[in-house]
Amino acid sequence: MLYRKWGSKNDEVIKYTSSIDSDKEIFQEVKLVMKAHVIELYLDKIIDKKISKKILDAINNFNELPEGYEDIHEALEDFIIKNVGEDGGWIGLARSRNDHVATALRLKMRAEIIEILESIIELRKLLIEKSKVFKNVLFPSYTHFQPAQPTTFSHYMLYIEEELSSRWNILFSVLKNINRSPLGSGAVVGTNIAINRSREAELLGFDNIIINTISATASRADLISSVSEITNLMISMSRIAEDMILLSSSFTGYVKIPDSQVSTSSLMPQKRNAVTMEILRSKGGECIGILTSVMSIYKGIPSGYDLDLQEINKNLWNCIKIAKSSLEVLKDLFEGIEILNKEIDKSTLATDEAEKIANEGKPYRQAYFDVADKVMHGSFSPTITLNESIELKSVSGSPNPKILEEDLKLIGKRLDLDKLSLSEYKSLIVSKMGQLRVIEDDIMQEGL
Amino acid sequence: MLYRKWGSKNDEVIKYTSSIDSDKEIFQEVKLVMKAHVIELYLDKIIDKKISKKILDAINNFNELPEGYEDIHEALEDFIIKNVGEDGGWIGLARSRNDHVATALRLKMRAEIIEILESIIELRKLLIEKSKVFKNVLFPSYTHFQPAQPTTFSHYMLYIEEELSSRWNILFSVLKNINRSPLGSGAVVGTNIAINRSREAELLGFDNIIINTISATASRADLISSVSEITNLMISMSRIAEDMILLSSSFTGYVKIPDSQVSTSSLMPQKRNAVTMEILRSKGGECIGILTSVMSIYKGIPSGYDLDLQEINKNLWNCIKIAKSSLEVLKDLFEGIEILNKEIDKSTLATDEAEKIANEGKPYRQAYFDVADKVMHGSFSPTITLNESIELKSVSGSPNPKILEEDLKLIGKRLDLDKLSLSEYKSLIVSKMGQLRVIEDDIMQEGL
Amino acid sequence: MLYRKWGSKNDEVIKYTSSIDSDKEIFQEVKLVMKAHVIELYLDKIIDKKISKKILDAINNFNELPEGYEDIHEALEDFIIKNVGEDGGWIGLARSRNDHVATALRLKMRAEIIEILESIIELRKLLIEKSKVFKNVLFPSYTHFQPAQPTTFSHYMLYIEEELSSRWNILFSVLKNINRSPLGSGAVVGTNIAINRSREAELLGFDNIIINTISATASRADLISSVSEITNLMISMSRIAEDMILLSSSFTGYVKIPDSQVSTSSLMPQKRNAVTMEILRSKGGECIGILTSVMSIYKGIPSGYDLDLQEINKNLWNCIKIAKSSLEVLKDLFEGIEILNKEIDKSTLATDEAEKIANEGKPYRQAYFDVADKVMHGSFSPTITLNESIELKSVSGSPNPKILEEDLKLIGKRLDLDKLSLSEYKSLIVSKMGQLRVIEDDIMQEGL
Amino acid sequence: MLYRKWGSKNDEVIKYTSSIDSDKEIFQEVKLVMKAHVIELYLDKIIDKKISKKILDAINNFNELPEGYEDIHEALEDFIIKNVGEDGGWIGLARSRNDHVATALRLKMRAEIIEILESIIELRKLLIEKSKVFKNVLFPSYTHFQPAQPTTFSHYMLYIEEELSSRWNILFSVLKNINRSPLGSGAVVGTNIAINRSREAELLGFDNIIINTISATASRADLISSVSEITNLMISMSRIAEDMILLSSSFTGYVKIPDSQVSTSSLMPQKRNAVTMEILRSKGGECIGILTSVMSIYKGIPSGYDLDLQEINKNLWNCIKIAKSSLEVLKDLFEGIEILNKEIDKSTLATDEAEKIANEGKPYRQAYFDVADKVMHGSFSPTITLNESIELKSVSGSPNPKILEEDLKLIGKRLDLDKLSLSEYKSLIVSKMGQLRVIEDDIMQEGL
Repeated sequence: MLYRKWGSKNDEVIKYTSSIDSDKEIFQEVKLVMKAHVIELYLDKIIDKKISKKILDAINNFNELPEGYEDIHEALEDFIIKNVGEDGGWIGLARSRNDHVATALRLKMRAEIIEILESIIELRKLLIEKSKVFKNVLFPSYTHFQPAQPTTFSHYMLYIEEELSSRWNILFSVLKNINRSPLGSGAVVGTNIAINRSREAELLGFDNIIINTISATASRADLISSVSEITNLMISMSRIAEDMILLSSSFTGYVKIPDSQVSTSSLMPQKRNAVTMEILRSKGGECIGILTSVMSIYKGIPSGYDLDLQEINKNLWNCIKIAKSSLEVLKDLFEGIEILNKEIDKSTLATDEAEKIANEGKPYRQAYFDVADKVMHGSFSPTITLNESIELKSVSGSPNPKILEEDLKLIGKRLDLDKLSLSEYKSLIVSKMGQLRVIEDDIMQEGL
Repeated sequence: MLYRKWGSKNDEVIKYTSSIDSDKEIFQEVKLVMKAHVIELYLDKIIDKKISKKILDAINNFNELPEGYEDIHEALEDFIIKNVGEDGGWIGLARSRNDHVATALRLKMRAEIIEILESIIELRKLLIEKSKVFKNVLFPSYTHFQPAQPTTFSHYMLYIEEELSSRWNILFSVLKNINRSPLGSGAVVGTNIAINRSREAELLGFDNIIINTISATASRADLISSVSEITNLMISMSRIAEDMILLSSSFTGYVKIPDSQVSTSSLMPQKRNAVTMEILRSKGGECIGILTSVMSIYKGIPSGYDLDLQEINKNLWNCIKIAKSSLEVLKDLFEGIEILNKEIDKSTLATDEAEKIANEGKPYRQAYFDVADKVMHGSFSPTITLNESIELKSVSGSPNPKILEEDLKLIGKRLDLDKLSLSEYKSLIVSKMGQLRVIEDDIMQEGL
Repeated sequence: MLYRKWGSKNDEVIKYTSSIDSDKEIFQEVKLVMKAHVIELYLDKIIDKKISKKILDAINNFNELPEGYEDIHEALEDFIIKNVGEDGGWIGLARSRNDHVATALRLKMRAEIIEILESIIELRKLLIEKSKVFKNVLFPSYTHFQPAQPTTFSHYMLYIEEELSSRWNILFSVLKNINRSPLGSGAVVGTNIAINRSREAELLGFDNIIINTISATASRADLISSVSEITNLMISMSRIAEDMILLSSSFTGYVKIPDSQVSTSSLMPQKRNAVTMEILRSKGGECIGILTSVMSIYKGIPSGYDLDLQEINKNLWNCIKIAKSSLEVLKDLFEGIEILNKEIDKSTLATDEAEKIANEGKPYRQAYFDVADKVMHGSFSPTITLNESIELKSVSGSPNPKILEEDLKLIGKRLDLDKLSLSEYKSLIVSKMGQLRVIEDDIMQEGL
Repeated sequence: MLYRKWGSKNDEVIKYTSSIDSDKEIFQEVKLVMKAHVIELYLDKIIDKKISKKILDAINNFNELPEGYEDIHEALEDFIIKNVGEDGGWIGLARSRNDHVATALRLKMRAEIIEILESIIELRKLLIEKSKVFKNVLFPSYTHFQPAQPTTFSHYMLYIEEELSSRWNILFSVLKNINRSPLGSGAVVGTNIAINRSREAELLGFDNIIINTISATASRADLISSVSEITNLMISMSRIAEDMILLSSSFTGYVKIPDSQVSTSSLMPQKRNAVTMEILRSKGGECIGILTSVMSIYKGIPSGYDLDLQEINKNLWNCIKIAKSSLEVLKDLFEGIEILNKEIDKSTLATDEAEKIANEGKPYRQAYFDVADKVMHGSFSPTITLNESIELKSVSGSPNPKILEEDLKLIGKRLDLDKLSLSEYKSLIVSKMGQLRVIEDDIMQEGL
């Protein structure tokens, strides 16, 4: 223990308040932020090159989390002081755990969202490619889980791509909101040392600083946006999971999930249970709870840093991990999925029939009633085939292979643009952070 | 009842599934979407000008929701058919309740988010203005609800502004994601009629269409983003509410909430209860539940429209109403708030003292321990005043009035930019929708 | 306005904090509690019979909620004073809105839970009766929504009964926890007037008092238990709803939901959408959100009454209404449900086959592998029929009609016991409350 | 891998669906259930004593969870077969993972709830004892976090005891609902082997069986009740935590939290942050999310076992652990808490003053207005002291030391009764389970 003059020796109490477990998640980011802080102190001539070198050396040698500390910040500072001597204590100047952890959390979340955005792009790419293969493969559409009208499996896949594209958009906006620096805000009101917050931000690849120091140190709202939108992504995927469970059931028999994703029963050997999709469905529910935890913890606590904020952290990484593995599993599934040759009910042609009669001049609602009567009396017999129905579709976004081909161009372009935006954004971050490396390298030459 | 051949005569069942109550919220939007559809059918030469005029007339005359229908769509269609005759039945062509309601919900949410964005701008403006007045008014900052370091009330107000600015950013992104058109997607796979979905989108002021028709009709993920981010806004405000409750308590005595926002007790006449702030705090919790309802309803339902989606709707408007009135109340509060002349504890100068010692050359952690010892032994006596402490702050975002003045320029510019972006975005919508009006006017001339 | 010397004239603010809407739900209970209080003051000789009569008269004449008050308590007190004169002001003695509303909420919740318990009993009764009819009607059981082993529809119905029976148990315990009186606790520390809290409790049919006055006035934990357990009931029912949606789909075709509970499509006339079951499924999600609202509002607020508590109330009644109508709808459904003559997959006999081989002396896991191999190679051909499978079942709770008949005796007895416990509990309440009526009648005789 | 003929070799997929981590929590219970099953097979003469012995030996030797299995059930069965030979495969008879895991979960939850009930009793006992010490120690009561009326710290402590007593009641009811056996229900419809489900239940200390086999294997509603009520307990405690944070702040200064439970700041040495109470407050929020996860996962999944149910499990144990450590921490706090000698505002005597005037014959509301006027004009000067105010309180549950002493007798008796009920309930379980041990011992003698 470093800071505490008072405080518990009681193990139960230490364990109750310790954040060591979730601190492991931000280990590298905490070190990186400390480096940026040391470099800033050096550039401000508060510490000289020699001390700076010693401290940076110590940071580089800090490779595991020792026990007995409240959190990683105390452990790192203690490690530095033990390795550097009293001069290590300079790092406490113009810096607090409050701004430090806020910065590390944003750096980590930035990296994680970028990974998720890339993963979504991979899945979208796969869906687009696969949809080219399944353009003529009939598939039932449904509403209210009743067969609705005939469609193709391509059309279904592009539905998923469309959902993912919306989620991608908003997550990219969330990323930009997160990529702003709290560093240099001290505990809550800033510091008396004239450090350059914008330069620190630049060194860490941030777009900007969060100006107000209370907001910088005590707000988690931008991080909560991440959890919200990842949860939103997860519940969109939980609907796909439900589709796959229902349509791969031998009750329905439209879809064959790859062997690698089904399991059987210890009592009933005939079962092909869509277990990955059940887990995916449940993960949607789990994330709703994670979001609720985060929001309920955050709600109504006084402004300024409270230890409640620490309890939010593990939830952030839990939901990130869930999203990453779920995207992976879904991609794996669509790589191997097969559509079984199950016939689609002809009654799904009723709408086409009504539109056909309307086309011949009868107001639609009347045409509809005519067909409805036949359907109800069991005398409905469609005059077109399922394949013809598909080809009759005439609007953007419909399964008609000709239109779908046109749509695919737009959809492909949309994907390319998203890829480009993301890679440019990443490059900018990398290039800014290059400056930190340059200065660090220069300091490390000291005395050699 | 119009569509149903089977279906309940049982009142209990009808009431259980009816959406009439929440349909009232989208009354105008449902009419507007129907107009766009009629105009599209007219432009596609599916119905002639005369029929179009009759139908538009009927839509204009549809001014209240009659009983006995499943929902507003059935009621409106029935009204049109009754007023126009069999030709009214054309409106059923190339259109379904599924794409219609999805479009109306987006139109309504677009309008509501714009209102909220404007309301946030108003509150930010007030905070910026007021912060100019309170630049030298001392105020305690706190972490862990313990007095931390001295600050000013301006600094606290700009903290709120900063929080609102982040929320504004992300809500504006949410708005753009919402402002895309599902219209023309039919029930789920589109339609055999070659209507122009992009033109429909344009007439309704949308930025774009949602391409895939399953996504267009069955997804609510973009709307869920709205609820998430509004909830995020509300829980940020719930922290402000908590601050106001705690600091206006006679236990602490820093803040005087305007008379218009306090209430007293039926048993204890001395009480000045911060009742609006208690409601605001609780509304944060209510919104978490609303979001949970929406997400739990949505999670794991099969793709394609399900009636479950209908049950989401009332939650959308509830959370919107809560946010609007809460922003109003908070603005009213900050218009009349007073800061009481309550002394701030001198121990909050401990950090300044340690920084001062560090400035004289002693590594910070050692300086900190020196001061900490004095604090613990009750011998701490600061060498600077509270006002000096404020003036010593040297980083962006701190309460130092000179720095704050500089920051205010940036903050003001940020606000101006946000105002501009929003008003340009609104103008674009209005100008696109002007086209609908022009065509409608032209049709309405028919036969005059 | 009655109490307030300060307070808002601002409509927006009044509306924001007003509870008038949700107070309507406890209108009768608030009057009843006031009567008990008046009678207690009379029995304590604090007010004489004449004044008591006048006040009781006024309470009886208070039949609608006027506008312009903070809440029903202020409105009622003002009404009494206006009707009785200054002596009406005695009712403010030894009584506060805090203990008054806490008592009214418990009375209302008591009545509502009793109704729900009765409604559950009705549904259980129906299921038991119907299960006698369907004892030999084959029905697929499933796990992972894959056909598992053959069962009967009776067995499925008794599954629902079992679930409801568990929920009934715990709700009955919740009821007893709720049925304790907070009255006489004043605002938070009791009162200087020596009223008899136990007698007040008795007059209102409570089992007991909540001793500590802070707990009595400021706790909502017992009420939150109600919402939890009703939500638990609702999510159990949401699984039944999912079953009905899936098995009534023409994709599967096992179940025919009564016409009164299906709806069709405005575009696709062939559809028989299980709309009530979709609503029921979604209501499970809605209730999760209601519970989250309640809990998030309650979490972390200071002890003692806070206005946050008021915002919990409407959620209580919302979830009660949902549960009541949902039980009604489910009962209606099972009254008219039909099982279609859809064949059950023979592979569901695999387990029977393995058990048969095991019965002949081969360790089960080996028998299982033998059958599994056949299933996988498509060479599995069962040696028993579906009906034989059912009759082979040999444990309590299985679908074997002989065992089921035995089980039905236990299940019937369990239901009878629950009915009896509830009706005895109700009688006790009614009889206690009879004393209040007797005293009221006596007072009302005054001066006649 | 044991059961699977198909299934993934893909590590990502195995990890995604594996339950090995949360299975560790029920390790002992899974073994115990297997023993009961083996003994039942032995008693039913399906396996002989020799085989039974071998299998029981193997179970006893199963002491760690090996990698590469779907779950503990597969691992255990494989271990048995490897150790016993082909005869180990008998354990698959009349048993499925579905009934096995349901039984183990109930056994584990039973043990955990009993521990929590005992822990609550310990805390209640401490509060009762301590309340005897603080009977004359003045303490502010508050509503709306405004000082309300004077009370004592004893009164506050007994408020907590009352809250805990209610939660205890309902948790004890939850326990009884949980303590029913699913064993012998197979995968979903029971088994063809005539095992005695009631005897199995008895051997495991259950009160009863859950009759219907679908309910037995696929319901988690009773377990969800546990999570609900533990969450309810946690949010009640989160209010206590908020009180402690607010009243131990140097802003208010009423309470001194023991040194072992406060922490200081890395930047501000004067801070005494109530960190354990902040964690406790946040844990209330975390539990709301855990409950939401559980409920959202459960909502709307088809009946019968789904793998979604597995994902509920870890949430059960998380919330149990939180409750256990939180009760411990709160007990530790109240063992060392001190009340500081901070004066209570005299305006809190206003109600006493009004009651006094009323006592002299003026209707209360008028008396109230008289006092209110004085309070508002700053001319209120109470005619009684704070201590007199306490002694004037005249109803059960109030802080008047004489009444409190009477109340303590009832409260102590209530605690004793609860202790007795619980210890009797535990004894019954232990004595039933003794039978299992006796039979096991007998089998283990075989061949010795």
